[in-house]
Amino acid sequence: MRRVMIALVLAGCSFPLFAQAAPAFVNTLMPEPAQLTAQQGSFALTASFNISLAGVHDDRLDSTISRTLHQLEMKTGLEFSHQTPAGDGGALVIDAVSTGNKIQSIDEDESYSLNITPQGAKLHAATVVGAMRGLATLVQLVQTTREGYFLPAVSIEDSPRFRWRGLMIDCGRHFEPIPVLERTLDGMAAVKLNVFHWHLTEDQGFRIESKIFPKLTGMGSDGLFYTQDQAKALVEYARQRGIRVVPEFDMPGHTTSWFVGYPELASAPGPYQIQRVFGVHDGAIDPTRESTYKFLDKFIGEMAAIFPDQYMHIGGDESNGKQWKSNPEIQKFMQQHGIKDTGALQAYFNTRLLKIVEKHGKRMVGWDEVLNPGLPKDVTIQSWRGIESLSAGAKQGYAGILSAPYYLDAMKSSETHYLADPIPASSDLTAEQQKLILGGEICMWGEQLDGRTIDSRIWPRSAAIAERFWSPATVTNVDDMYRRLWVESIQLESLGLTHLTQQDAGLRELAGSENIAGLRLLASVLEPVSFGERYHGQHTSQLTPLDRLVDAVRPDPPSRHTMNLLVRDFLKNPAGMVNEREQLNATFQQWLAATPELQRQMTRSPLLAEAQQRAQQLPGLATTGMEAVGYLSNGTKAPAGWKQGKLAILADAKKPDALVRFTVLDALTNLVNAVQEQ
Amino acid sequence: MRRVMIALVLAGCSFPLFAQAAPAFVNTLMPEPAQLTAQQGSFALTASFNISLAGVHDDRLDSTISRTLHQLEMKTGLEFSHQTPAGDGGALVIDAVSTGNKIQSIDEDESYSLNITPQGAKLHAATVVGAMRGLATLVQLVQTTREGYFLPAVSIEDSPRFRWRGLMIDCGRHFEPIPVLERTLDGMAAVKLNVFHWHLTEDQGFRIESKIFPKLTGMGSDGLFYTQDQAKALVEYARQRGIRVVPEFDMPGHTTSWFVGYPELASAPGPYQIQRVFGVHDGAIDPTRESTYKFLDKFIGEMAAIFPDQYMHIGGDESNGKQWKSNPEIQKFMQQHGIKDTGALQAYFNTRLLKIVEKHGKRMVGWDEVLNPGLPKDVTIQSWRGIESLSAGAKQGYAGILSAPYYLDAMKSSETHYLADPIPASSDLTAEQQKLILGGEICMWGEQLDGRTIDSRIWPRSAAIAERFWSPATVTNVDDMYRRLWVESIQLESLGLTHLTQQDAGLRELAGSENIAGLRLLASVLEPVSFGERYHGQHTSQLTPLDRLVDAVRPDPPSRHTMNLLVRDFLKNPAGMVNEREQLNATFQQWLAATPELQRQMTRSPLLAEAQQRAQQLPGLATTGMEAVGYLSNGTKAPAGWKQGKLAILADAKKPDALVRFTVLDALTNLVNAVQEQ
Repeated sequence: MRRVMIALVLAGCSFPLFAQAAPAFVNTLMPEPAQLTAQQGSFALTASFNISLAGVHDDRLDSTISRTLHQLEMKTGLEFSHQTPAGDGGALVIDAVSTGNKIQSIDEDESYSLNITPQGAKLHAATVVGAMRGLATLVQLVQTTREGYFLPAVSIEDSPRFRWRGLMIDCGRHFEPIPVLERTLDGMAAVKLNVFHWHLTEDQGFRIESKIFPKLTGMGSDGLFYTQDQAKALVEYARQRGIRVVPEFDMPGHTTSWFVGYPELASAPGPYQIQRVFGVHDGAIDPTRESTYKFLDKFIGEMAAIFPDQYMHIGGDESNGKQWKSNPEIQKFMQQHGIKDTGALQAYFNTRLLKIVEKHGKRMVGWDEVLNPGLPKDVTIQSWRGIESLSAGAKQGYAGILSAPYYLDAMKSSETHYLADPIPASSDLTAEQQKLILGGEICMWGEQLDGRTIDSRIWPRSAAIAERFWSPATVTNVDDMYRRLWVESIQLESLGLTHLTQQDAGLRELAGSENIAGLRLLASVLEPVSFGERYHGQHTSQLTPLDRLVDAVRPDPPSRHTMNLLVRDFLKNPAGMVNEREQLNATFQQWLAATPELQRQMTRSPLLAEAQQRAQQLPGLATTGMEAVGYLSNGTKAPAGWKQGKLAILADAKKPDALVRFTVLDALTNLVNAVQEQ
Repeated sequence: MRRVMIALVLAGCSFPLFAQAAPAFVNTLMPEPAQLTAQQGSFALTASFNISLAGVHDDRLDSTISRTLHQLEMKTGLEFSHQTPAGDGGALVIDAVSTGNKIQSIDEDESYSLNITPQGAKLHAATVVGAMRGLATLVQLVQTTREGYFLPAVSIEDSPRFRWRGLMIDCGRHFEPIPVLERTLDGMAAVKLNVFHWHLTEDQGFRIESKIFPKLTGMGSDGLFYTQDQAKALVEYARQRGIRVVPEFDMPGHTTSWFVGYPELASAPGPYQIQRVFGVHDGAIDPTRESTYKFLDKFIGEMAAIFPDQYMHIGGDESNGKQWKSNPEIQKFMQQHGIKDTGALQAYFNTRLLKIVEKHGKRMVGWDEVLNPGLPKDVTIQSWRGIESLSAGAKQGYAGILSAPYYLDAMKSSETHYLADPIPASSDLTAEQQKLILGGEICMWGEQLDGRTIDSRIWPRSAAIAERFWSPATVTNVDDMYRRLWVESIQLESLGLTHLTQQDAGLRELAGSENIAGLRLLASVLEPVSFGERYHGQHTSQLTPLDRLVDAVRPDPPSRHTMNLLVRDFLKNPAGMVNEREQLNATFQQWLAATPELQRQMTRSPLLAEAQQRAQQLPGLATTGMEAVGYLSNGTKAPAGWKQGKLAILADAKKPDALVRFTVLDALTNLVNAVQEQ
């Protein structure tokens, strides 16, 4: 009896065959394709969906197809055939012309076209990697209605604006376990990022095994490092997703961890210990000794065999020159060789290093500071200082990658990152110089991160930046970006990313309880302060426990833009926008309702109590909003002095406290300012 | 300016030194120790807390100390020294007498004593493993108040009731990635489970690399298997946590995946394919050919080198004998050797297999069915059929492990598992026979699991069962168990387990949105049906996408016991229990309030729509509860027929639907039955 009933219920859900009503196409693609034309109708996704291969394929395309089918299965509950016969008999026909390079090159053709009709879908691409990009688009295209799942009839012609669309993760200051990096690569592939820049060495830790120099990790990593096998496996994991891996070995500065085992590399005598404090330290490789270059030749050669990408990053940032200035031998060397300052000495080091890197078949990338007079033109500059320094490089003929506006630890909004363009409309670069701008790279520095918090710092903001790197420069509608971002955020979560779950987990840990309704509400309108504010406020080091409210909350949560949008729409016609008014009031009511329980909860532990003031400020924000909405929708005036009082409340809430800031103050300020006084 | 303000705020949270007010000791230990005496006062945990070693130590204790300190740091936000000097100068002095066995034995002495006074703590243990158990207790002892963190003054003498406290995970039917197993081991160590039983081979997949027989995984695993290096690393990971790893190679049945690459092992000609359907299949190893034993000798020898534990599990369950009966050669062999039936043939196989297992230095474990006449007494029986078969084995002199009442896929409550005792008070075993009951093992079968859902199936219920295996038989207070379980559940989450986060993630995926308040409420009063009900209802196979509401919800969520408790207390004096009445009404109001949005949301996709009826039933349950509470607290009678109508609503909600069931029906039934009619 029981068995039959359940079977009937479930049978009721597998009726997409009967549901051919074409739903309106809602574009939830991120990044936006270069060209999309919506057609009439749609293709119903049923259990008979399958894929055939009209062109070439390789292990990368095969595994991407398998993952794509799995994603579609999890999205729809349908079970698909994983057989991929040759020919054009499939519901989706993939036609890739060439397998491209086994080791994906920077020049890989990633373009594809995707045509979906009510009869089926065709994906055409010049290379396997292009086909993989098309499959990422396909997954995002799925439309869900109560009746079933559909692929809308569309015609897409797509190719990236920039060749280099990267994400850097600093695994030096905090080690990130392999599963964290794997799920990050899954997320990158979903939004068509194509370079994983692996920052592997820092003052705080040397993270990649060297068999030639075992003391690098043996003494410089606290046991937290990637074995060569793990690194190779991760490179392969990335390759299967169309992602290049560029390793970084930062030198001559940021090298304290090297010196713990090999003090003879340093420019001042040891002994050295792993540096726990962040910032710019004096330790620097001695560029004047031949033994240095012998060491680096062996080391770079060993690494070149693990990381097959064309490019290798040698860091080069923030070398302060102090050890060089205070070492008489180095000073003598500079005099003898006519090297006039430490900048020139770093240029000498880079030139020697470049020869080694090139000897091992690699092209060299370095941060801004490597750009010194005399630097050969075949070095690529990654700009963390700003678009001006990137442009300056391009004008001198250097290829460049922009990173300055994409520092995730600045805790800026998706919107801010999104609107920063590697080649802004105002650029004075010539067309030829613009070609030298390879693209951009998101930077996730690791000072205040661990494996639990990293996802919410990277996602979903990186999806918005990925669109900047891929889509046409004209795609700049912020509201539409956010609408699509919230959809993509859920898709990223289903790939295994923890950017959404981590907040509640952190709140439960703080509360010691599953009952976090009030805390969840408070957290929804808070975000972390910037790296710098936290660093100065908390004096974080590598050993600081990352277990505070600031670690639980996430940058640019939906509350900020949602509230801005609501207020903007409401203010267009306060008397008429009933829906917006009700939503605003419901939100403010929720804040008020949560307050008593929340304030009780904040006294449960020191870690909560330190953020108690934020909970105390919440009802004031709620009443500010409610009163403003009341005056505005009734068309009445507030008593004289009301505005000043409310703006004082908002100003108070804006003050730094507990390393978190409110996301809704701009919206509330706009509301208050719109009120007229008697 | 900003910098100074934040620093001041944070400074405000590091004042535990000034907060010596001793909080009342609240026991949140799980498992309960054998003996605990609470003393006056407490020891304040401050940044100066450190550990010294008065006795021996080894890599296991060192790494456990490091993890313990990290857990304490994350709990308190304090940064501790990780130096562990010799002597008794530490705030916590650990005195372990012996390092015990490098490969932990079943007879390892796990006892310890822990004494905490306002001046400090002393942990004494006969072995390093005992000290590790004591550290797990220490972490659970931490008391949090607004003023700071404390270790209560207690005196604990602790040792386990059973030597074998296991958790089996079936990685055959669905592969579980290494990180899943690692976090499971972390959870096991926290609640003092000490055996990880790794079910590595099944009809649906062969999961462990054999270098001698590469086709086992090459053709029998879909590429989803553990390399030998990974397996060794996991064994070491477990060893560092005081957990033995017992591998299982299930035979002669459940072996289809072996035969894909090696059909010559089977009792019927091939070819074979990986079996996607669950259940008992006919494929069985041919026990009559010498080549079988040559194969097994090599294979067992290879595995014995990877898994250092004393014990090896050879399965032995559910071999239906059909292939043996239909193979003339095998029939002839049986006649020639006087083997009267397939049971006797399996006994013959086991006897031969036992010799091989023992040759490679292992003791053999098998499921119930290996217990056939003539089975040597040195085989240990794991009972999945029930306590009777375990007792029958003990009476014949076989050591045994109880599993039948600990099948997590039955989706029973923690309470039900908790009250099942390997040696119940009613046992008729002699004292000598009772010694043969080594303990118990929780079984997590993998038919309807994946890496996303497994945690909520295992945790926190396994913590309650772990208490059954460790604590005295007299510890049976269910209410107190639940009170401590909800606390431990949060601690397990902070170890990285996803049993709490997975529900929201699943709901967001179903909704395609972050807005899941209504769904979250519905899910809070639902739980999955049993494996059997789902299997018959959905016809799940290895290829079924596990993406439904049933996959998101968790077994025995807090709602069940919380509601039972509230109703029980309320019914003691309905007119007087104001607090309980208000809590009940608030809960029912929440259900009602969520209903409109919830019902809209359930129409968003087929996967939600299939559970729509559950959402439609929720308001009926709410009004039933509210009306009952109203009558009872007012002391008024319901109109005639009211009860019948409400019980019909509850009966309707109890019917199978959408593979989920309500958790609150018992409580509501009790409420309704307490109402008097006119």
